[in-house]
Amino acid sequence: LLDDADRAEVRRGFADLLRAEAASEPHLRGVLRQAVGHPGSLVRAQLAFGILLGHDWSRKSAVAVATAIEYFHTASLIFDDLPCMDDAATRRGHACPHRVHGEAAAVLGALALINRAYELLWSVLAALPVRIGLEGSRIVAVCLGAGGILDGQARDLHFEGITADEAGVTAVAEGKTVPLVRLTLLLPAVMADAAPADVAKLDQLSRRWGLSYQILDDFKDAWTTGAETGKTAGMDRRHRRANLPAAAGVTRALSRLDSLLAEAREIVSRLGAQDRRWSVLERLQCILENEDRKIRSRPLLVTVQ
Amino acid sequence: LLDDADRAEVRRGFADLLRAEAASEPHLRGVLRQAVGHPGSLVRAQLAFGILLGHDWSRKSAVAVATAIEYFHTASLIFDDLPCMDDAATRRGHACPHRVHGEAAAVLGALALINRAYELLWSVLAALPVRIGLEGSRIVAVCLGAGGILDGQARDLHFEGITADEAGVTAVAEGKTVPLVRLTLLLPAVMADAAPADVAKLDQLSRRWGLSYQILDDFKDAWTTGAETGKTAGMDRRHRRANLPAAAGVTRALSRLDSLLAEAREIVSRLGAQDRRWSVLERLQCILENEDRKIRSRPLLVTVQ
Repeated sequence: LLDDADRAEVRRGFADLLRAEAASEPHLRGVLRQAVGHPGSLVRAQLAFGILLGHDWSRKSAVAVATAIEYFHTASLIFDDLPCMDDAATRRGHACPHRVHGEAAAVLGALALINRAYELLWSVLAALPVRIGLEGSRIVAVCLGAGGILDGQARDLHFEGITADEAGVTAVAEGKTVPLVRLTLLLPAVMADAAPADVAKLDQLSRRWGLSYQILDDFKDAWTTGAETGKTAGMDRRHRRANLPAAAGVTRALSRLDSLLAEAREIVSRLGAQDRRWSVLERLQCILENEDRKIRSRPLLVTVQ
Repeated sequence: LLDDADRAEVRRGFADLLRAEAASEPHLRGVLRQAVGHPGSLVRAQLAFGILLGHDWSRKSAVAVATAIEYFHTASLIFDDLPCMDDAATRRGHACPHRVHGEAAAVLGALALINRAYELLWSVLAALPVRIGLEGSRIVAVCLGAGGILDGQARDLHFEGITADEAGVTAVAEGKTVPLVRLTLLLPAVMADAAPADVAKLDQLSRRWGLSYQILDDFKDAWTTGAETGKTAGMDRRHRRANLPAAAGVTRALSRLDSLLAEAREIVSRLGAQDRRWSVLERLQCILENEDRKIRSRPLLVTVQ
């Protein structure tokens, strides 16, 4: 998503926590070391960094915001993988933190990531005008709170009681996947004082991207062995979680993915694909379209149903 | 600690989350309902509220800060009680949230409390001068992060490997109990722009109070049935956690408690027991001294060892 130099900078920012927490209790430090040592694609961090740099922000502040968003995401994955949630064994190609360092340390490590994320965000928000600081804080609260991702996660975990039709699956995806995408797009835009009309477009985009991303993830969960994705596969079937290809069929899920990506493409164009403030969006759109093509070319597709 | 009207206001602030999250997923809402429906003594919220009111803050902002601190504390209790930590059955006289609504919902509910706590704090910090906003944010990060309560909690959970002498037990208590007391005293003081010399005294006081509080708690854990305290007793022995009366003996623990409370009394006097800015401290000091007397008057004391 970013060029090599920018990506390296985002990666350094993400790894910074470890230096700060070198004296922590060994199990806790082990979880943090794993969390920042296996950073994944850092796509959310790259997006936030790209938006802020596009708006002429300093690299230092942009890295702080990008890292904060990625820490929130990483914490959510550690929680998701716990025995009381997905009970996953593998994430990012390695044994999950709770399998290596124990559940308690995993919980404490995830909380440390969240704490550090708020600290990083505040360090930047505090220097902004009060109006922007308050609006930024409101977005964080809405996306990450009991009305945002936590509610979506709770609905996914207790999905078994809900009829698994397309609308039900979409509602769950909207709750659990859209909020972090929304945070990733809206928070940097609001911090950079983007025009309200552009923020509104980003809000629409985050819904399309979030749902697209979830459908792609549903396919990956259903048909890969985990060797490709680095995380335990088959979780949705095992836990009877919301999964669109399973609920609505492969054909319908693919056609839904198509419409969502077409709508997203339209929004990205309206924001201005050539506008350097938003050029990072164009690049993620291309990546998602490419993922879509890859899904379609898989011979094993029918095994999902 | 506060008069009836002030206490009622703090209690209303604490209960406010529920109204905001009325539409959450039922298990998640159940955890939040339990958390704010059984508020405990709200001693941390009362302290913070008392300090801010003593410094002529508006009741609205004081309630926001007080509620935030109490939500952090309540979240820490929900995590502590999880099967992977203390595996407790009862808290505040009721079954623990994870026993009623499931572990996953308990985790998500605790995270919702944390998210809301940051939102409340930020709503107040954002309007303060940048210098104070940054210093307030730093205190939150230090007290609640991987160098603060999370580290202390990790050390307590992995205490079995450490020699259980007085110094070792004190180090664990310092890590797990002092940070929240520190947050409760320092954050309101810094927000109210108290003199650095007073903030330094509060820092010393938080250590004495935190350790005193932990020793009182160690006694309660060891010798009550849980009917008195409303929470599962015998946790330290069962999990081989740090417990001063068990490690150093009852006589030594009581004499330690005496010195700590005498030092605390001295600090409170130096802050000015008659100074209305700090009068709430004098009241908590009296409550702790009273608890100390109660411990001494118990006939069953020797059963601890």
